[in-house]
Order: sequence, then C-alpha cells, then structure tokens
Amino acid sequence: MIYLDNAATTVPDAGAVNAALKFLQPDLCLNPSALYRAGYAAHKEIENARNTILSLVASPLKYDLIFTGSGSEANNQVVFSGVTRGNFVTTAGEHAAIYNCAKELEHRGIEVRYAPLHADGSVDKTELLRLVDKNTSLVSVIHVNNETGAVNDIVGLATAIKGAFPQALFHSDGVQAFGKIPFKLTGNIDFYTISAHKIGGVRGVAGLIRKKGVKLSPYIWGGGQENGLRSGTENTFAIKQFEYAAIHKFSTIQEDFDRIRIYNDMMRQNLNKDLFEILSGEGVSPYILSVTAKGLRGEVLLHMLDDAGVMVGTGSACSSKQRYSRVISACGLNPTQSEGVLRISFGSMTTQEEVKTAIEILNKCAAELREKTR
Amino acid sequence: MIYLDNAATTVPDAGAVNAALKFLQPDLCLNPSALYRAGYAAHKEIENARNTILSLVASPLKYDLIFTGSGSEANNQVVFSGVTRGNFVTTAGEHAAIYNCAKELEHRGIEVRYAPLHADGSVDKTELLRLVDKNTSLVSVIHVNNETGAVNDIVGLATAIKGAFPQALFHSDGVQAFGKIPFKLTGNIDFYTISAHKIGGVRGVAGLIRKKGVKLSPYIWGGGQENGLRSGTENTFAIKQFEYAAIHKFSTIQEDFDRIRIYNDMMRQNLNKDLFEILSGEGVSPYILSVTAKGLRGEVLLHMLDDAGVMVGTGSACSSKQRYSRVISACGLNPTQSEGVLRISFGSMTTQEEVKTAIEILNKCAAELREKTR
Repeated sequence: MIYLDNAATTVPDAGAVNAALKFLQPDLCLNPSALYRAGYAAHKEIENARNTILSLVASPLKYDLIFTGSGSEANNQVVFSGVTRGNFVTTAGEHAAIYNCAKELEHRGIEVRYAPLHADGSVDKTELLRLVDKNTSLVSVIHVNNETGAVNDIVGLATAIKGAFPQALFHSDGVQAFGKIPFKLTGNIDFYTISAHKIGGVRGVAGLIRKKGVKLSPYIWGGGQENGLRSGTENTFAIKQFEYAAIHKFSTIQEDFDRIRIYNDMMRQNLNKDLFEILSGEGVSPYILSVTAKGLRGEVLLHMLDDAGVMVGTGSACSSKQRYSRVISACGLNPTQSEGVLRISFGSMTTQEEVKTAIEILNKCAAELREKTR
Repeated sequence: MIYLDNAATTVPDAGAVNAALKFLQPDLCLNPSALYRAGYAAHKEIENARNTILSLVASPLKYDLIFTGSGSEANNQVVFSGVTRGNFVTTAGEHAAIYNCAKELEHRGIEVRYAPLHADGSVDKTELLRLVDKNTSLVSVIHVNNETGAVNDIVGLATAIKGAFPQALFHSDGVQAFGKIPFKLTGNIDFYTISAHKIGGVRGVAGLIRKKGVKLSPYIWGGGQENGLRSGTENTFAIKQFEYAAIHKFSTIQEDFDRIRIYNDMMRQNLNKDLFEILSGEGVSPYILSVTAKGLRGEVLLHMLDDAGVMVGTGSACSSKQRYSRVISACGLNPTQSEGVLRISFGSMTTQEEVKTAIEILNKCAAELREKTR
C-alpha cells in the first residue's frame, strides 16, 4: 500500500519508538513528579526532551514549551485562555480545532471575526489586518493550511498586528509546519502549536510553545504538572518518543523539503489535466497537494484508489463527516468542484517509486470512474 | 527496588504493551477517522476496545465510554460541562483534578460546597446530603480516596441524591477504584472517571463513562472524534494497550484484591507502633495504606527509604509541592502528624516477599531517623 495521507497522521518513527520503549519499563516509567530518584530521573528526561524539542524552532531563552495531550488541546487552551473578552480574530482557513473553538466562543456571546482566504487557501492579509482593533484579545492564523498547504506569513502578520495593537496576542497553529517547513519563531509570535504524530511521533503528546511571560491559563486543572499549566501525570514515553522523532525529522528537514518538492512537482505535472485540477497554489508546503477530480465524487474515487493500493484523504480528514470541506469552500470552489477534492499528502518516508506508481493509479482510477459515471 | 507507589502510577503491563505495539506500525497506526480500509480497521479496533473496557464496569446498553487523554481531563470535562449555573457539591477529599476545578469555578463566581470527611477520609454522608439542593447542578464524590484508600458508598449517595433532587447530576472519580475494587455502575451514577495508567495501562488515555442520554459538552473542540465529545486523532496504541491491560487486570480482580488485603494487613500489623500510626481505616481499599511516621518528616524518611530500596509516596503525589496534604488535613490530623505522612500503595505485581522486606526497611529507617532527630 502507498500511504499518501501523511497530513492526517504519520507512521510512528520505528527507531524513535524502540528507543523510547524503556520509558514504559521499570524504573523510567515511574511518576516524574515523585520525590524518589526514579521519579527525578524521569523528570530530568522530560526536561531534556522539552529543551531539545523547543530548541528546534525557538530560543529557550525567549520561549517555553508546555506538553499537552494533543494539538487540539493546545489550540483549545490558547483560545479559551486568550479570549475571555473583546473579540477573536481568525481566518476562514483554520483547522477544526480552532474553528470549532471559535464557534463555541460565539455561542458564549464572544464576537469572532473571520478573515477571508485567497484562492490558494492563504489568508487575505489586508482583510485580516482590517479586522483587528483595540478590543481584539487574540489573533490565530494557521501556519500551513492543512487542506491546501498554503503557507501564511505568520511572522509578517504578527509584526504588523503587534505594531498596531500590542495588546492582541498572536497564535499560530503550526501542526502542519513543524518539522516540515524550515522555520524559527521570532519575537512577535506569542503562541505556537506543534504536534508529535504529524512527524513520526506517537499520539498522546503535543505541545504549546509560549513566549516567556505571556499570560496563559491552565485548561486542564489538577495536580499542577507542567508548571501548573497542564495537569495530568506526565506522559514520559510519548514525550521521549516525540523528542527522538523530532531530532530525526529535523536532521533532514531541508533535504526532505527539497525531495518532497520534487515529488509534489512530479504529481502536479503528471496528473492527467483532463481529469484533475490542481487546487494547491505554487510555493505552498510541498507536503500537501490538494486536487479536485473534475466532475467526480472524491469519496468514491478514494475507495477505488484504496482498492488499487493508494491511500489519500478527502478534504480534511478531521472533519470527514461534512460533505464539503469548509476550507475548500472558503477558497472559492463551487460545490461541484468541492465534491471531487482529494488531499494527497507526502511524508519523509514517501519514495519516488511510490509517487510514480501513485500517479499512474490516480490517473487510471479517475479515468475509470469518469467512464462509469458518464 | 521495591515499588510501593502504585497509586501514583503503575508499571505498564508488558504483555499488553507488546500486544499493542502493532498499532504503532503500518497499517494499524493510521487515522481511525479516515475513509480507507486501514482507517476503518483502526476504527473497529477502537470500538472493540471501547465496548470491552466499558463492559468491565457497566452495561453498554445503559452507559457509553468517551476516551480522553487523562483522568484529569475526564474530571475537568464533567465539572465544566456540568456546572454552568447553580452550585457544585463535592467533598474535602477529592483528587486535585476535581478540587482545582472547584477552585476555578469559585473564581468564576460559582458556589462550591465541600462536604467534610470522617477521620478515615470517607465523606460524611449526612453532611453531603444536607448540602445538595434544588440549585445543585453536579455532585462529585471520589470513589476510592487516593490518599487514604477510603471507599465512598457512591451508589448509596447517588440514589439518595437522585431521590431528593433528580436534576442534580452525579459524578464519581473512580481512578483508584477501577480494576482494583470489584464494582459495577448502577443507574443513578451519571458519570464515572477511569484511567489506564493506574492499572498497567500507558499514559495518554483514560475514560469518561456516561449514562446514555445524559447531557455532556465537549471540552476539547475540533474534528469531532468520540462522537463529537472529545476531539483529537484517536490514540489507537494507548487505547488498545489500555484494553489489554484492563482485561488482564479484571481477570484476577478478586484474587488480587484478596491477596493485597493480606499484604496490607501484614503491613498494618508489623509496622512498629512506636514509630508509625496507621491513618487508613479498616475496610478501605487494600491497595492504599496511609501512615504517619510519628514526629518525623515524611519527605526525609521517603529519601532514606529510597536509598534503602523502597519507593513510597508522601501525601498525594499529584500535589507534592504542598507541604501538608489538603486531604490528610481534612481528615483531622494536626500539622505534626501531617508532616510524617507516607502513602504506601500496592499493585497487582507486588509480591509478599517485597512486602516483608519493605516492612523491615520501613521500621529500620524510621528508627534511624528518630535516633538522628532526637
């Protein structure tokens, strides 16, 4: 099987899993908050992991990292901590873990302002800046759009916003960027969400990077772990496996980026233009290629591809119960186009051979389906 | 090393870890919400785990189970979903994951009423019932007290409360009971929290059992997993490992209970009465034995024990930064007694030989410390 749904989840890095298995065994599995030496040893391992992972994208002098249970949890924490009054400014292209928090805020009577997208899925910067005002508590802009791969200029946006309205906190959901797009956090970004399982980590751990000194409320209250900001016994195994997977991923981040760009271009050039329309713009993240199968139903095509040995996504896997993708619609596609959307997403384990075969299968299956539904 | 801090966390069940490792490998590691067959296969595995785990303590006809990332998260979800108005009734003996939610509710202007404890750590039933009224939204009573092992009659309490005030929802934090105390949920309990890592499961997964039809709001918003009640990509590995560990644990729950009762009694009888006072009452969970080392500082003794090869807890491991345990204080101990508190907690892997050796070491270390501090 050829796996091209890496934006949904990646296969855990086997070397990182093996290296971390000792944290499921005595004595390194014990409670990191306990006072005996084995507890302290686990605690030190977690602090090392925190420092290592954080250093990959930010200066530990300027930022800290709170381990959470998922990227969704990190996003929820930022939104519900940051927006208790005023208004919340975000985009029409956010992942459901921001979008559905925004909907809940509206339900609680908080005003949410959604900036529109360009056709490629990136946010309209001018429109976004126009929405921010002195009552804005938080601005949240996804770094790499999880459906189209569009990269938002979060540094530029954060700088512009902070210049005009310094009270507004700036958050970016970096789940599809971390470990994929070479990038470092700079001073105007207050919060940044990262996730383990999109880069070979296991599920059950993710992180919220926070600029030091920026106010953040706990979202899960309890025993006061993570400096009081996220309670619950620390997940040593998942945190260490995340560390090992991240080190591995970042060690080849630029080479992978360049290689995946080649695969992405191969796919763009060789998908049959009569059958497929490329939705992802030029210069977006090479890891994600959104296409629409003209006049076909994406879900039907997905099942044919699955039978033929290729796994891809439709719209956002996270909201696969909706018929049309909310984000794809916000890019300006009409319902007919939206019906045929497939998300092809590469991982660092993807090979050129797999991409070649996948292109053949995509063209073949779409042609067959076109024939059938004619 | 002899590990007697099993109430904080248990060593993961190695057989269950090995059996679940395939869920970290292709193809069973893929996104359970995805539409291709590998996604559906993972989804089915999760549904089987849900049904199996739920069936161990409740009827799947009457209850459902929502997988969360931790017991703390499950407790937070119940409290913040259940108490948006009126008052919240709980006890002075709750785990920090309820207690600190209660404090946060107070901070938000919601009235919280705390029922006092008996000396053994169980709640005063008469006083608790007196606190509930027609404005009570939620009552939360810990099943087995995590510091003293006291067992609250949650079925009796829920029945009494529902009889008088049917609008009040009833929740119990069952983290220290699940897999240890033979018990089945009956109709008057609306919510029950369970956790994997207290019974040989890995961290990163826990559960909230809910009576079917009882209103519950999501706490982590996003892609709508867990029937919309808990978003975030499903943690297949942790969920399956939890299932396997739970099956294993429940297969010997009564024998373990009886065996651990013997160990607990051995400890009670053979700890030197001049040095130790037993705090846990009779008839509490055999898995937890709270003692105080008379006139000694628990933390100092803990480190001596650690050096001598025995790991125990002090007060609640989850709030080890406080000097005195809030719960132990609520049992009526004075500060001098509270300073010497140790929590000895057994697991199903504990052996009789270990308990004998631990008793000798406890007596020896306490005598030495007494001598030194005289």
